[in-house]
Amino acid sequence: MKKTAIYAGRFDPITNGHLDLIQRAARIFDTVIVAVAVHSPKETFFSVKDRVNMAKLAVESLKNVKVEAFEGLLIDYVHSRKANVIIRGLRAFSDFEVEFQMALVNRKLAPDIETLFMMPHETYSYINSGRVKELWSLGGKISDFVPRVVEQYMNKTKKEGHYT
Amino acid sequence: MKKTAIYAGRFDPITNGHLDLIQRAARIFDTVIVAVAVHSPKETFFSVKDRVNMAKLAVESLKNVKVEAFEGLLIDYVHSRKANVIIRGLRAFSDFEVEFQMALVNRKLAPDIETLFMMPHETYSYINSGRVKELWSLGGKISDFVPRVVEQYMNKTKKEGHYT
Amino acid sequence: MKKTAIYAGRFDPITNGHLDLIQRAARIFDTVIVAVAVHSPKETFFSVKDRVNMAKLAVESLKNVKVEAFEGLLIDYVHSRKANVIIRGLRAFSDFEVEFQMALVNRKLAPDIETLFMMPHETYSYINSGRVKELWSLGGKISDFVPRVVEQYMNKTKKEGHYT
Amino acid sequence: MKKTAIYAGRFDPITNGHLDLIQRAARIFDTVIVAVAVHSPKETFFSVKDRVNMAKLAVESLKNVKVEAFEGLLIDYVHSRKANVIIRGLRAFSDFEVEFQMALVNRKLAPDIETLFMMPHETYSYINSGRVKELWSLGGKISDFVPRVVEQYMNKTKKEGHYT
Amino acid sequence: MKKTAIYAGRFDPITNGHLDLIQRAARIFDTVIVAVAVHSPKETFFSVKDRVNMAKLAVESLKNVKVEAFEGLLIDYVHSRKANVIIRGLRAFSDFEVEFQMALVNRKLAPDIETLFMMPHETYSYINSGRVKELWSLGGKISDFVPRVVEQYMNKTKKEGHYT
Amino acid sequence: MKKTAIYAGRFDPITNGHLDLIQRAARIFDTVIVAVAVHSPKETFFSVKDRVNMAKLAVESLKNVKVEAFEGLLIDYVHSRKANVIIRGLRAFSDFEVEFQMALVNRKLAPDIETLFMMPHETYSYINSGRVKELWSLGGKISDFVPRVVEQYMNKTKKEGHYT
Repeated sequence: MKKTAIYAGRFDPITNGHLDLIQRAARIFDTVIVAVAVHSPKETFFSVKDRVNMAKLAVESLKNVKVEAFEGLLIDYVHSRKANVIIRGLRAFSDFEVEFQMALVNRKLAPDIETLFMMPHETYSYINSGRVKELWSLGGKISDFVPRVVEQYMNKTKKEGHYT
Repeated sequence: MKKTAIYAGRFDPITNGHLDLIQRAARIFDTVIVAVAVHSPKETFFSVKDRVNMAKLAVESLKNVKVEAFEGLLIDYVHSRKANVIIRGLRAFSDFEVEFQMALVNRKLAPDIETLFMMPHETYSYINSGRVKELWSLGGKISDFVPRVVEQYMNKTKKEGHYT
Repeated sequence: MKKTAIYAGRFDPITNGHLDLIQRAARIFDTVIVAVAVHSPKETFFSVKDRVNMAKLAVESLKNVKVEAFEGLLIDYVHSRKANVIIRGLRAFSDFEVEFQMALVNRKLAPDIETLFMMPHETYSYINSGRVKELWSLGGKISDFVPRVVEQYMNKTKKEGHYT
Repeated sequence: MKKTAIYAGRFDPITNGHLDLIQRAARIFDTVIVAVAVHSPKETFFSVKDRVNMAKLAVESLKNVKVEAFEGLLIDYVHSRKANVIIRGLRAFSDFEVEFQMALVNRKLAPDIETLFMMPHETYSYINSGRVKELWSLGGKISDFVPRVVEQYMNKTKKEGHYT
Repeated sequence: MKKTAIYAGRFDPITNGHLDLIQRAARIFDTVIVAVAVHSPKETFFSVKDRVNMAKLAVESLKNVKVEAFEGLLIDYVHSRKANVIIRGLRAFSDFEVEFQMALVNRKLAPDIETLFMMPHETYSYINSGRVKELWSLGGKISDFVPRVVEQYMNKTKKEGHYT
Repeated sequence: MKKTAIYAGRFDPITNGHLDLIQRAARIFDTVIVAVAVHSPKETFFSVKDRVNMAKLAVESLKNVKVEAFEGLLIDYVHSRKANVIIRGLRAFSDFEVEFQMALVNRKLAPDIETLFMMPHETYSYINSGRVKELWSLGGKISDFVPRVVEQYMNKTKKEGHYT
């Protein structure tokens, strides 16, 4: 059976931790879709267009990975893609808690969809998009935390004055 | 000795998880007061009137349970009700942390009041009001997560255009 | 309604942390029974007779508290005492995990029995019987960790050569 | 690509929690191998023959699941089966810790093998083989915690006097 | 070698928990600098001037402790002070998580700087600036949670109508 | 003031994670003593002589580090060395719990001694002596987890038939 796995998130922006997980998933599943949430309970820093663009740049070399924006409930989107696997990264305890709650709610709503948790490389265990943006806004070096193409995209955005 | 237990929170809105805990407490204590916080560090989605109304609908059949709004410090309210037991639900680790801090602060301020922690049924371990509202705002099915009367109240509120 | 709460454990030996919890429970429930487990998955250091004796010495001044040994399943013992409340202390995260598992198993076996969790005073949050015995066996001072009568009992036991 | 996932453990005995996870994995992977560890740091209660037999009885109706005993390092066994996925259940925080350590050690030793974590149904979140044996040895009812065929096998073993 | 340790934070306001940690650090290091962050991802309640003033009042009697405001990345500030030790308090699990992430990011950016974690006295384990402000705004007694001079400063600020 | 820090443990055997921490501590304190516990609640695999020897081999190139065996209470040993700092590694949540309990007991017994927690490099976050021995006994490769000289020592011990 052909298997598609959905890796959903805000990707605000996509980090090396996200990319590490996508590469791992791409070795296990036939297709991996990076699903960028249009709406989010917390406001995003980058527009959905920018978030999708950065994600596309980051996964360009991975043949069986594609990037899409999605709206509405994740489970509806997963069904629309004929998928039954959601991939989530588990880095740490605070993740664990929220991830389990979300996975259990999703399972209640759609029992046919299974959430699989994967561990990023320990080098990326302390990276998240929030910390990357904080560092970036203070002028810190982020080249160890996001792919080079994403850093370039972020800096270009900054120069164009989208975020001031 | 007659025992009154206070179960305080924002109840924004009351969920099946809250209701499960109230039923458990009502089998142990002579009176259980569901105390709806008027003010809260985080803004609530529903008005205090709506939150009290929904809580009242949810506990209607429980003879020794009543619902009240309260303002100010919880410990002052508990004293005003001649109670010395606060009930809190413990679902998970992030709960645990915050709950313990609050309970220890309350104990410091009022050593005569004891906080008792209860476990909701595991079916409700992943439900919280925040997730219910998120789901509801995306058009998801919430009937497994809140009492039917609460869902009806929420939908009526929506139709009346209070929240748009 | 008269309420009896059961506080079960190995009490090998009873510590100031246990005693703190018993005093708190005794202010909430009409009767508190300290139930000393005869058998235990892990071998105990003190005999059941010694553990019961030390617990009795420790709670002597508390009018509505009694000490009993019990065998078999805890829920059967709770039923035999016409009680429906089990008291457990929650000190920390490793407690939390094991305590929740036990409480959920007990709830499955006996849905009428409720487990209530209480927080010991923070002064006792780091005391447990294991650490007391370790300290005692290395000649360390344990007078801050167990009631004076228990320390005396322990030392008498040592002199009599029961444990060498 | 055909995908084989390995679900390894002691299965001492296999529980409803294990079975729930196996069923979930069997819906995602082409083949699931339940790999029963012959040796274990902690001694097992049932012999490897009994543990394999009980696992086979439990998964009998699942077409793409098979049961095998394995010796030595798990990663060598996974390689020998031409698999690159290890399945682990994640129930709770103490699990999480140990599971992550094991997965990271395995990843260091065999970077081509990925560990995927799955959540059992919340009904099984508090079941583990240790608690089942403890309950069983005290004469408690275990029919909610293990498959019926496993309970029968266990009771037959008891009657034959293997464990007294 | 002379050792300077930096204890950085928002100190909004400084609490008895902070003070306890500063006293402990001052017994180990030659100099301790309390570094008050000018900017913060979350908005502060008190101005940086007020936060520095309150911290100075609180540590007045400690000879080898000084208070400074700092801007930009913490690691740049630590380097500018010829220091290589950051002190952080660890109270609990939610602390732990965030603290470890921050420390690992800082270590990546500046491998010569080491983060040392210290435990506050258990009496202060449940105090944080947020809870103090919440309590204070509800008219609760905060004298057990902040130094007396800080409480006076806070009340003076209130009377002057800075916060209404 | 000259500062001596004590890093105590069983070191059964010393791992790269231990060594990483010792190197970090040696950059902060004037002297670091690696204190090998003669006795331990859990039996050790290697003799105290072997554990001391392996630790000495591992730290040979670090000028301000020495290795000693110690008996009795750690705090008495720390006092005997005119030290007031205990160093502990914090890797993860299960560590955290036990570490805090031990540190609080030690603080109660000797308020002048402070426990400082340090984070090992994330590469070593999943290594512990127990897992190393398990791996080694199954014939797995341990060269990434212990210093080369320690691996050689372990293998020599094995050949000499001390552990069979």
